[in-house]
Amino acid sequence: MHKIVRNIPRPDPEAVKILGELGVATVHEAQGRTGLMKPYMRPIYPSAKAAGSAVTVLCQSGDNLMIHAAIEVCKPGDILVVTTTSDSTDGMFGDLLATSLVAHGVVGLVIEAGVRDVSELTAMDFPVWSKAVHAQGTVKATAGSVNIPIVCAGASIQPGDVVIGDADGVCVVPRERAPEVVKASQARFAKEEKNRHSLREGKLGLDMYGLRAKLKELGVEWTEE
Amino acid sequence: MHKIVRNIPRPDPEAVKILGELGVATVHEAQGRTGLMKPYMRPIYPSAKAAGSAVTVLCQSGDNLMIHAAIEVCKPGDILVVTTTSDSTDGMFGDLLATSLVAHGVVGLVIEAGVRDVSELTAMDFPVWSKAVHAQGTVKATAGSVNIPIVCAGASIQPGDVVIGDADGVCVVPRERAPEVVKASQARFAKEEKNRHSLREGKLGLDMYGLRAKLKELGVEWTEE
Amino acid sequence: MHKIVRNIPRPDPEAVKILGELGVATVHEAQGRTGLMKPYMRPIYPSAKAAGSAVTVLCQSGDNLMIHAAIEVCKPGDILVVTTTSDSTDGMFGDLLATSLVAHGVVGLVIEAGVRDVSELTAMDFPVWSKAVHAQGTVKATAGSVNIPIVCAGASIQPGDVVIGDADGVCVVPRERAPEVVKASQARFAKEEKNRHSLREGKLGLDMYGLRAKLKELGVEWTEE
Amino acid sequence: MHKIVRNIPRPDPEAVKILGELGVATVHEAQGRTGLMKPYMRPIYPSAKAAGSAVTVLCQSGDNLMIHAAIEVCKPGDILVVTTTSDSTDGMFGDLLATSLVAHGVVGLVIEAGVRDVSELTAMDFPVWSKAVHAQGTVKATAGSVNIPIVCAGASIQPGDVVIGDADGVCVVPRERAPEVVKASQARFAKEEKNRHSLREGKLGLDMYGLRAKLKELGVEWTEE
Amino acid sequence: MHKIVRNIPRPDPEAVKILGELGVATVHEAQGRTGLMKPYMRPIYPSAKAAGSAVTVLCQSGDNLMIHAAIEVCKPGDILVVTTTSDSTDGMFGDLLATSLVAHGVVGLVIEAGVRDVSELTAMDFPVWSKAVHAQGTVKATAGSVNIPIVCAGASIQPGDVVIGDADGVCVVPRERAPEVVKASQARFAKEEKNRHSLREGKLGLDMYGLRAKLKELGVEWTEE
Amino acid sequence: MHKIVRNIPRPDPEAVKILGELGVATVHEAQGRTGLMKPYMRPIYPSAKAAGSAVTVLCQSGDNLMIHAAIEVCKPGDILVVTTTSDSTDGMFGDLLATSLVAHGVVGLVIEAGVRDVSELTAMDFPVWSKAVHAQGTVKATAGSVNIPIVCAGASIQPGDVVIGDADGVCVVPRERAPEVVKASQARFAKEEKNRHSLREGKLGLDMYGLRAKLKELGVEWTEE
Repeated sequence: MHKIVRNIPRPDPEAVKILGELGVATVHEAQGRTGLMKPYMRPIYPSAKAAGSAVTVLCQSGDNLMIHAAIEVCKPGDILVVTTTSDSTDGMFGDLLATSLVAHGVVGLVIEAGVRDVSELTAMDFPVWSKAVHAQGTVKATAGSVNIPIVCAGASIQPGDVVIGDADGVCVVPRERAPEVVKASQARFAKEEKNRHSLREGKLGLDMYGLRAKLKELGVEWTEE
Repeated sequence: MHKIVRNIPRPDPEAVKILGELGVATVHEAQGRTGLMKPYMRPIYPSAKAAGSAVTVLCQSGDNLMIHAAIEVCKPGDILVVTTTSDSTDGMFGDLLATSLVAHGVVGLVIEAGVRDVSELTAMDFPVWSKAVHAQGTVKATAGSVNIPIVCAGASIQPGDVVIGDADGVCVVPRERAPEVVKASQARFAKEEKNRHSLREGKLGLDMYGLRAKLKELGVEWTEE
Repeated sequence: MHKIVRNIPRPDPEAVKILGELGVATVHEAQGRTGLMKPYMRPIYPSAKAAGSAVTVLCQSGDNLMIHAAIEVCKPGDILVVTTTSDSTDGMFGDLLATSLVAHGVVGLVIEAGVRDVSELTAMDFPVWSKAVHAQGTVKATAGSVNIPIVCAGASIQPGDVVIGDADGVCVVPRERAPEVVKASQARFAKEEKNRHSLREGKLGLDMYGLRAKLKELGVEWTEE
Repeated sequence: MHKIVRNIPRPDPEAVKILGELGVATVHEAQGRTGLMKPYMRPIYPSAKAAGSAVTVLCQSGDNLMIHAAIEVCKPGDILVVTTTSDSTDGMFGDLLATSLVAHGVVGLVIEAGVRDVSELTAMDFPVWSKAVHAQGTVKATAGSVNIPIVCAGASIQPGDVVIGDADGVCVVPRERAPEVVKASQARFAKEEKNRHSLREGKLGLDMYGLRAKLKELGVEWTEE
Repeated sequence: MHKIVRNIPRPDPEAVKILGELGVATVHEAQGRTGLMKPYMRPIYPSAKAAGSAVTVLCQSGDNLMIHAAIEVCKPGDILVVTTTSDSTDGMFGDLLATSLVAHGVVGLVIEAGVRDVSELTAMDFPVWSKAVHAQGTVKATAGSVNIPIVCAGASIQPGDVVIGDADGVCVVPRERAPEVVKASQARFAKEEKNRHSLREGKLGLDMYGLRAKLKELGVEWTEE
Repeated sequence: MHKIVRNIPRPDPEAVKILGELGVATVHEAQGRTGLMKPYMRPIYPSAKAAGSAVTVLCQSGDNLMIHAAIEVCKPGDILVVTTTSDSTDGMFGDLLATSLVAHGVVGLVIEAGVRDVSELTAMDFPVWSKAVHAQGTVKATAGSVNIPIVCAGASIQPGDVVIGDADGVCVVPRERAPEVVKASQARFAKEEKNRHSLREGKLGLDMYGLRAKLKELGVEWTEE
């Protein structure tokens, strides 16, 4: 029942790069407000930023055996995405594992559990998004899987999906949708740039987005006092 | 039932300035330990600090339409205070709205919901206190109100109340009470300065505040081991 | 029933120093994954780091009277460990109390409640681990105890135990076990240094820790796709 | 600053009775989806149901002194509404206080904190809505107020407002609005009865509320598979 | 982007019936400890029990428009499974919608949000599993989808999957796996019956499952005191 | 490091019986408001009530191996008290284990984790206090200990301590203190009976406990309106 899949399809690296630069908020909007992880997934330092191809890991809670198994099948440009069979805040990952990931070209970690050695990870500039910071150690006793479809922090992920993380959280872009999401994200970015300019000059969103009519239709009234 | 109030009374700007400088902990104490928002309201960056006159906004959860409506009635020196009809962590506010607020002289945002684009907001040094950071986008479909009395993060607020925020959280000072709270806060600050000096020299709070008698009255015993 | 114990045994200062340098994650592992506080205990600034001999304080929720009582029995090198009779996020501690603690040589605070004046505490570089940041003021009306055994954030602590805190949280080392835990921690540190070197060169944890056999024994299968 | 107000306006008892019978969900809707407390306010037994005129109490967390003070100013038909200066789950109320309330004709308790003796309270059929069940005892040491405006579980309440509770939670109806809310609630109830009949016969909400057009306008598409 | 799928494959009704009778704990174990929803999904009354074929619904938070749209495509034996675009506790469902579902043969509701009219739903014996009980009303303003793959309370669900609920929570069985999971669940049930008999006679799990060797292998020691 | 202690001191069964009858709220008060577990520990059915001598169990999160080991050292009248190395809601215990405990005369379970088969446990009238109800299965792979001092839900427990549970939660009475706590609890019960009588006749707590003076001393003022 438990397995480690060695070879997975991976997204176009250029698409990954662009999506990472455009950032979580823009990409999430551009793909129709889907793929976002829950807000409890926070970066361990404010400037953490990463984008990569997902290698997925399902671990027993409190057991990081499968993270070790996953590293062997990682390739440069991958991002590790780890969840557990039930809610856990254990510190399943620390600077030794990060050292190993860096040696294999992995660009970051998304883990729906805890992480430790956060000072060292910050010094290494190894970006991590986690549910908790906790020193609690784990065992290596129970089977799990690598590169199977998982649900992480409320988001459904397939191995090889694009995962991007920044200060706003973590977003998943399905691999096959990556090209269209790149386009939609770039279009959104361009539109927002233009809007930003208008707003900076004092124009109101009410006018820019035509919301006055909407407010009236909804029966909202303006009163002087 | 839903309305946007254009004109509201505003507090004395000098009082706002002084209260902001004295900070949340001092002002909260000086006004009798009232007006404080719940501790889940956190600044998006550690040095965030603001004080302003409240423009209040009540939105449907997951809908930021009324934030757009509120900007039109804001004046320089205002601070936007947003709550929702029920608990939500959606990212109702980002850098575009912040750009618009800055263009209209608004000095900060207090939002009992989520916020996004936090890297950009930090770079802009636009102070925000929120319940969550989340990229989750919102709609513009449902009516709400601007400048009505609201409850935000457990605190009752009237439009035009003084709202101050810093690393310790957010505190509301009723507009009419502002002058007396300024005085009480300044008095408290002066007293604390004096106490700080004594404590720095090693004097004990036990002696300074006369607490030994209290401890004895309560039956607390000192034992050698 | 309530008491303040003046004299307590204290651990070897050299052991305290070494344990503090080795850090929470290493020490927690080295002593058999015990003594760790819950993950909701977070430092108020990322670089906070401290190690000391515990002076324990049990307060009524919302009442910091016994913190004042505790300072008198503190000695240089101590760390104050405060809990309350029931869950509370009130800001029981601020920069005045920190000034007093610094004047008596206390090196940090661990408090299962709230703390305020965090900007000032950060500027003072006074390390604090707390459950919340909240400006909420407290009273001085109810008896409690100093230097009795307490449970703080899930960890059992005796007065005089070694308490260390860093970015990964807070860990308690029983005073009598300190010498052996120093040795075990140093051994673990040395082993990890060696492993770090191997991992940096690309060696896999799977091989280094002999986990391939374990995976097979558990029935995990490798598949190509 | 702290006070006990002896005389407060009270709502029409007939209005209170009708609102209580119509229930929280109907009344909350009928008054425009306002006045509802947070969902963490739960009845201590499933059949708990009450409606009364609010006597409001603000206590220090962990201190039930002001509940004792409040009983003296209660009248038959009142419901006690208690909050604390900061979040607390302490068991501020038990069967002795309930016995006292019953002796004075009080019909129920809404408390944003903990409650104990829940078996006895259930046997007495004394309805309570609370944030927690906890045996944790409290002190009687700190001042608070009775019959001042408070915020309880996110809802703003004035003394003399109508408070109704049932299995769906707790809702506040401002005293002056009670007559109109009675009418609106009865109208809503009648309309729902009619809709219930149609729905029971298999009619779809899509048709009954004219939602097909809305779905099309929003661009939702029906597909066969 | 948003759609309502009219026709979906459905599982064998006999398999659904058997899985429902065997219950969540047994089925979850039998299918390899997968498919379980988070523990915050609780039945609104203790005896709630249901099994059906999933009709999935994705709603905007605070908006129940798509529940209305879903009813039209439901068939007898279905169970409605609803989630929202972000965390919400709003009462999206009440007794009117339940009346409509019953009229169309739907056997229960699983909703990662709030529910209201719980007294009426209990009286109707209409089983519901939800994240919260809340009277908070919702709007009908924003598009969503029916019968698309969703993630509900941490579990991935396809339209037509078997969903079973009882006092232990909610579990999803993928439609194609239903026949094998029936067999595995029945086998597990039979084995447990046998074990129950042995345990009732005083036999130890230590002996029955051969755990003494495991304990020794792990280095656990028995001591007399 | 991990061990199973076979023989432990046990409290006087008569004391256990009396403490159980007096209940959690009374005993907790009588022993000075200590020993209470956190409010998240709830009975799985409202009438659950038990008192026994604690057999303590420390398990790895998600692993119930040590519960099996503990049963062998249980004696009639014991109550099992289980905690885990870190926070977990996994369903570590179900009706098979309960059957085994009943066969060995164990009177209840207190578990800082999850439990499953709650319908069956309720039908057996086997009382359980837990942090969660969850069907999530566990493994039997990692060492732990039986009958060592543990911290469970914030309370410190020694093997052989008296543990009582009822609808108000769970309280621990240290074995050596049991005789005195019996006396103090009986005295409190008698006093409360008397007070209950006075309160039923309409006497005010204000007068009965002499609180008017306290209110005046605190500066609380009575006003007519």
